Amino acid sequence: MTAYIVTVGDEILIGQITDTNSAWMAQQLNLQGIRIVGKTSVGDIHEEIIESIRYALTKADLVLMTGGLGATKDDITKKAIADFLGVPMVWHQGTFDRMAYFFKKINRTVSEMNRNGCFMPENALILKNDKGLAPAMWFDIPSEFQMSNVKFQGENAQNTENSSGNAQNTEGGVKTSNVKRQTNRVLVSMPGVPYEMQHLMSDRVLPKLRGSFPMSPIVHRTILTAGEGETTLAEKLSDFEDRLPAHVKLAYLPSLGTVRLRLTARGDNEAALNRDLDALKIELESIVKYAVAGYDNDTMPVVIGRMLKERGLTIASAESCTGGYLAHLLTSVAGSSAYFEGSVIAYSYDLKEKLLDVSHETLMRVGAVSEECVREMVQGAVKRLGVDLAVAVSGIAGPGGETTEKPVGTIWLAVGDGERIITTKIGIDRGRLKNIEYAANIGLNLIRKYLTT
Amino acid sequence: MTAYIVTVGDEILIGQITDTNSAWMAQQLNLQGIRIVGKTSVGDIHEEIIESIRYALTKADLVLMTGGLGATKDDITKKAIADFLGVPMVWHQGTFDRMAYFFKKINRTVSEMNRNGCFMPENALILKNDKGLAPAMWFDIPSEFQMSNVKFQGENAQNTENSSGNAQNTEGGVKTSNVKRQTNRVLVSMPGVPYEMQHLMSDRVLPKLRGSFPMSPIVHRTILTAGEGETTLAEKLSDFEDRLPAHVKLAYLPSLGTVRLRLTARGDNEAALNRDLDALKIELESIVKYAVAGYDNDTMPVVIGRMLKERGLTIASAESCTGGYLAHLLTSVAGSSAYFEGSVIAYSYDLKEKLLDVSHETLMRVGAVSEECVREMVQGAVKRLGVDLAVAVSGIAGPGGETTEKPVGTIWLAVGDGERIITTKIGIDRGRLKNIEYAANIGLNLIRKYLTT
Repeated sequence: MTAYIVTVGDEILIGQITDTNSAWMAQQLNLQGIRIVGKTSVGDIHEEIIESIRYALTKADLVLMTGGLGATKDDITKKAIADFLGVPMVWHQGTFDRMAYFFKKINRTVSEMNRNGCFMPENALILKNDKGLAPAMWFDIPSEFQMSNVKFQGENAQNTENSSGNAQNTEGGVKTSNVKRQTNRVLVSMPGVPYEMQHLMSDRVLPKLRGSFPMSPIVHRTILTAGEGETTLAEKLSDFEDRLPAHVKLAYLPSLGTVRLRLTARGDNEAALNRDLDALKIELESIVKYAVAGYDNDTMPVVIGRMLKERGLTIASAESCTGGYLAHLLTSVAGSSAYFEGSVIAYSYDLKEKLLDVSHETLMRVGAVSEECVREMVQGAVKRLGVDLAVAVSGIAGPGGETTEKPVGTIWLAVGDGERIITTKIGIDRGRLKNIEYAANIGLNLIRKYLTT
Repeated sequence: MTAYIVTVGDEILIGQITDTNSAWMAQQLNLQGIRIVGKTSVGDIHEEIIESIRYALTKADLVLMTGGLGATKDDITKKAIADFLGVPMVWHQGTFDRMAYFFKKINRTVSEMNRNGCFMPENALILKNDKGLAPAMWFDIPSEFQMSNVKFQGENAQNTENSSGNAQNTEGGVKTSNVKRQTNRVLVSMPGVPYEMQHLMSDRVLPKLRGSFPMSPIVHRTILTAGEGETTLAEKLSDFEDRLPAHVKLAYLPSLGTVRLRLTARGDNEAALNRDLDALKIELESIVKYAVAGYDNDTMPVVIGRMLKERGLTIASAESCTGGYLAHLLTSVAGSSAYFEGSVIAYSYDLKEKLLDVSHETLMRVGAVSEECVREMVQGAVKRLGVDLAVAVSGIAGPGGETTEKPVGTIWLAVGDGERIITTKIGIDRGRLKNIEYAANIGLNLIRKYLTT
């Protein structure tokens, strides 16, 4: 099965927003074994939207549209779909009722413009949006539908489907047709607001796709690795990959300082696929064991948080060049107050001495960007903040500030409890912001290493 | 003039990377008065790339392609362009020489795969890439070129253009044609690596476009505002907007906590346009004066850094719920060590007392999420860190942790020097990460307010 994404909105074409929806949708579809063959963005122009839909439907079985459903945009996507399919717009009472209920709660009345948003293409199957006012719309495009824009010969009933993805109700006074569809292709239109789109994809569209199409089982196992590059992992796993059965694929998904390894198996027998992957996962893990940090949707801050909670340990950071970014990553996880106590960011020599007890002699002799300094920062933070563990970073984020021995990108890191301390050094200049982000991620992995050795 | 963007690469279609290039290119083209009419992403498939180029060239005067130029991808974009234009691939000595020089520096030899990257479509004008190995390619598509994939009737000379955007050299042993081109459309192919693409756009493609096309002058004035929403600004500027002459437009470019206002004028006489905009800018500023934070490409951390440096003041942050993110923003600017001394992140009650001298009595009586607490955090940070100014944040980033009086999203902020302190409170839950980012941005604006009142 193949899919094509069409995003609608001038705001994408003038560069006002970055399209993050497409990447998210692509990931979700991939997990279902649906391949995206292309993606197009168009402005809020009626004819352009129609042309994009037509083009996309010649390319793929499933076309997913986002955007252009807001009332202020004059519902341009809906009208374009209706005109493409050759159906009229009809009033949808269910959408109005939800809107009226919501507005009543916030003491507002439904305006004429809002009311306009309750008209839908006649043959739309309405997928309820629990996170916003504009529902998603599902259109079955039967095989006999002519792309050259003739009148749509399919159903004319207007249905509402609830979250179960199965029940069909009559709403809006139009009786549901129960004729079995002969569907070749599907068109789905969703709002462009990311969290609304994600809700509609996860809770409505994907379940309905699984129910509507004969999709062969696809199963995954995802392993999060840290501290090792994609190339090195690929070399170590080269034999393993060569031996993989034809129905199993291994994907490398690299990010800053981590690589996700994803095993995917397709076939007819889901139980057999699961057995295959469980065995292969064990084999894979045994090869790159030292780098395995977590599974599935784990992130490094989540992994570290879990380890610290399990052991009942608290942590703090002592940061120079990362300027608080490592603390930000640690506290990006809900519930991090259970193990994260606080941090000292000491940019100046003076504050390194005053707040972290780094010795004046060390700073004078080897400078702040040194193994000695980050060791003392760990010791100072553990003592001053009264935590079990501390992570320290000091380096040259650049641009500027480099010396002959210490070029921009030279960054020292340490993790320890005041007695046992491990350190590491990185030294490639990726530009100031990337240096900061990379160092913070290396810091997270150093915490993991400390806790596992 | 209109443009169309084509991005090439499986990594976009499987959602492995988010396409940030398109938004950046759209912004740059917009500043030149070039309107993007659409954007398409295709996978690494020969026929699909050719079809996209053909489609894009029917839609716009200028087609910008990114991606698919790496040696590992088998140079699929170049071959597709050559086949689309009906020209052979020819050896380009200049690209090889640059590659050989670079590899020699890092003690590597040029592999067979690298060598393959030195073949270019015969009629490509090569635009040198100072930040990477793959150059950009510029193709003039003459008006007589038939889209139906006949042999390209244009030039067959192979040129290299240097950064001046004017000089044409012979390279690769082929003599330069000096025939004046009759160009209707232009196709440009660039690498997908963001900083390489940005360099090639800014230093090669845009200057050459300005030189090649009769573009009417377009001038801009950009004002950065902070602390006021788009809707409020639009209301205040409604009369001003109504009175704008037809050749001037006002755009609102909102971001988290800031809105950029951009005046754009088009016409024949650049000097007159500049005079018009200078006058209108003064008028606009007088209407929203209190919100004006900076100009052009200023960001809030840059604005604050400049103000602090001018006054010779130092600053520190005292953070609870933002967990270091405010410090990260302040230190995202190169040279911030001139005014940023450090921070204390105190997540726990205990550390608020121990490191920032917040009184136990305050915490017991009104809690950490209170005006009293952030005031004391400012005073403690000023004293303990020996800085002129401090910014403090304490709130409930969520999810969880709320009380009846303090729902998730309740965040108190303060800025001061220990004597004069100003405070503010925000209270809308946008989800944990957005709450953190928004609060940090409000903190930046509070610093600005403090320094301007």
